[in-house]
Amino acid sequence: MFHAKIKSETLKGVVDVVSTLVDEAKFNIDADGMELKAVDPAHVAMVDLKVQRSAFEEFSADETELGIDLDKIKEVLRLSRAGDIIEMEQDEAKNRLVLNVGNITRRMNLVDTAGMSDPKVPNLNLPAKITVTSDELQKGIRAAESVSDHIALNASPEGFEMYSEGDTDSVSLKLPKDLLISLDVSEKVKSLFPLDYFSNMVRSIPAGSVVTINLGSDFPVKLEFDIADKQGSVDYLLAPRIESD
Amino acid sequence: MFHAKIKSETLKGVVDVVSTLVDEAKFNIDADGMELKAVDPAHVAMVDLKVQRSAFEEFSADETELGIDLDKIKEVLRLSRAGDIIEMEQDEAKNRLVLNVGNITRRMNLVDTAGMSDPKVPNLNLPAKITVTSDELQKGIRAAESVSDHIALNASPEGFEMYSEGDTDSVSLKLPKDLLISLDVSEKVKSLFPLDYFSNMVRSIPAGSVVTINLGSDFPVKLEFDIADKQGSVDYLLAPRIESD
Amino acid sequence: MFHAKIKSETLKGVVDVVSTLVDEAKFNIDADGMELKAVDPAHVAMVDLKVQRSAFEEFSADETELGIDLDKIKEVLRLSRAGDIIEMEQDEAKNRLVLNVGNITRRMNLVDTAGMSDPKVPNLNLPAKITVTSDELQKGIRAAESVSDHIALNASPEGFEMYSEGDTDSVSLKLPKDLLISLDVSEKVKSLFPLDYFSNMVRSIPAGSVVTINLGSDFPVKLEFDIADKQGSVDYLLAPRIESD
Repeated sequence: MFHAKIKSETLKGVVDVVSTLVDEAKFNIDADGMELKAVDPAHVAMVDLKVQRSAFEEFSADETELGIDLDKIKEVLRLSRAGDIIEMEQDEAKNRLVLNVGNITRRMNLVDTAGMSDPKVPNLNLPAKITVTSDELQKGIRAAESVSDHIALNASPEGFEMYSEGDTDSVSLKLPKDLLISLDVSEKVKSLFPLDYFSNMVRSIPAGSVVTINLGSDFPVKLEFDIADKQGSVDYLLAPRIESD
Repeated sequence: MFHAKIKSETLKGVVDVVSTLVDEAKFNIDADGMELKAVDPAHVAMVDLKVQRSAFEEFSADETELGIDLDKIKEVLRLSRAGDIIEMEQDEAKNRLVLNVGNITRRMNLVDTAGMSDPKVPNLNLPAKITVTSDELQKGIRAAESVSDHIALNASPEGFEMYSEGDTDSVSLKLPKDLLISLDVSEKVKSLFPLDYFSNMVRSIPAGSVVTINLGSDFPVKLEFDIADKQGSVDYLLAPRIESD
Repeated sequence: MFHAKIKSETLKGVVDVVSTLVDEAKFNIDADGMELKAVDPAHVAMVDLKVQRSAFEEFSADETELGIDLDKIKEVLRLSRAGDIIEMEQDEAKNRLVLNVGNITRRMNLVDTAGMSDPKVPNLNLPAKITVTSDELQKGIRAAESVSDHIALNASPEGFEMYSEGDTDSVSLKLPKDLLISLDVSEKVKSLFPLDYFSNMVRSIPAGSVVTINLGSDFPVKLEFDIADKQGSVDYLLAPRIESD
């Protein structure tokens, strides 16, 4: 059983974060809220999302799983305006999700979750921790895009750098310690990532967010940030590209 | 003979309503104003438009016909700003229409009207009458678009519904009596329409208009609304799609 | 040696004017500022640009040549906002140009200037001189675009006209003497130009500029205007299309 009401902008934040990596996803729901873990089809990136019941205007649920085609939720979101409340109700008899916004009712078939396993989130021990605004990350990505399809994240006790190098050109965004929200780095670390994944992930982070970057050398990066007015949290993991030389 | 001045936004309203169905059209003009009847190339929809001379800033005409390529009028409209006055003059010697807006003069060949007959508007006796804002219709269309390429219009003494059903999903916009401007329905009626036609027609209605929907069961729908600051009126007719089952 | 700081909007103005005709260009720099002459690949149009050192926030240079891929400068400009200062420094050892904007550093290889000759600007004696705002030129171009791919520029002691004629239609923007900033024409002149070139040139002129048009009959047109807050100037030359009939 699942019946809830949620602000359209809160639901949009949840959907944006997940749909960056997958088209369909399994939401695990219980009396405390909802949770989701998903890996992108190429197995390069992972999202681990938690939304507490307090993120909803109304929420009542038993333990259940909802397999959702995220594009359909986006269609309903496009029919709503900021401030609108979206009502969601599971129709267990017909295996449907029913969404109401204003005078509009959208009934959608749920996706079979049989083939959707819950990926195991690896336990990483990443030595460097950098806290920064998502806007600075966006800036670094935009700079990198004209030069390469990879981006290196470098951290040292002095600061954080996003660096890209192409055949003829290079570009760098340097954030010294005083331009960061916090920096906890004892020695230099550096990992290289595919720019398209990193860019899509960062773009789905709500503007003005604070992001904690957990970084190692040739290790996955973990991005942590809050959604749903701090009533939800997201961990993104992205596998590094190991430079062969 | 035809010589008139008209506000660019008024002319734009007229052109939008007609160009939804046809690229070229024959305007029948006399001393009282202009009139146009046109059927789309697939013979699915019809427009019946009247614009009184009072819709114009200046108007003088004998009985005449103007075959107009509507794209050319749109090109001139794009050169004008809201509030601009467009001067139109028939050049009978050269079979041209001359448009002036500000310092710009556009001379365009008229289209041969020999092959353009005046379609006969069928006399329909539609039992249900619903009056609603065009904005509500727009909302229902946007909801329907993600689900199907047809839309059912349903009316009952309780209210009006726009309903679409696809393979897996359905969507409905319900407007109970108190959300309608008026409702004159004695028994349930329902007709199904091609969504692209219905959508294009409704999109060409000026925002904020009041639309009267005349509806039957498996019958054409007639949409009535005013243009040109109530100095003109439009009837749209759209053939139903008969469900075979 | 070249080291300078410039407002991003000033640099954008310079790049827009040049990149309309060429992708790569050779900037000739000395202690007084920079200069550039370039011809488009089809040898139809020419730009002759001068930017004084006073257009820069800081400027120090010996005589040098910089071969620049203009798209790369545009990429850096897209990372900046109005009011940002862009620092440019030649790295002679590596034959690079280094650009800094905020915390971003972009290093780009310079283009080999060996094959880039300085075109000779022809000494034209054009009898008619019309001074007009770039906005009026824009309006005339937009009007012409729907009718033809050529535009005639006509001047007489009474005024200036931009005229286009297609197979069925014609369009004209007439600017009588009192709508021009100045008019110095003793006899009628008329030249025809390719609309795409003329349009691209006029579009690269900063909005609100004053443009002096030097015109003859079947002769190139010369457009003169200022950039960089009057600390720079541009001459555009465009070859006429000779009507054969």
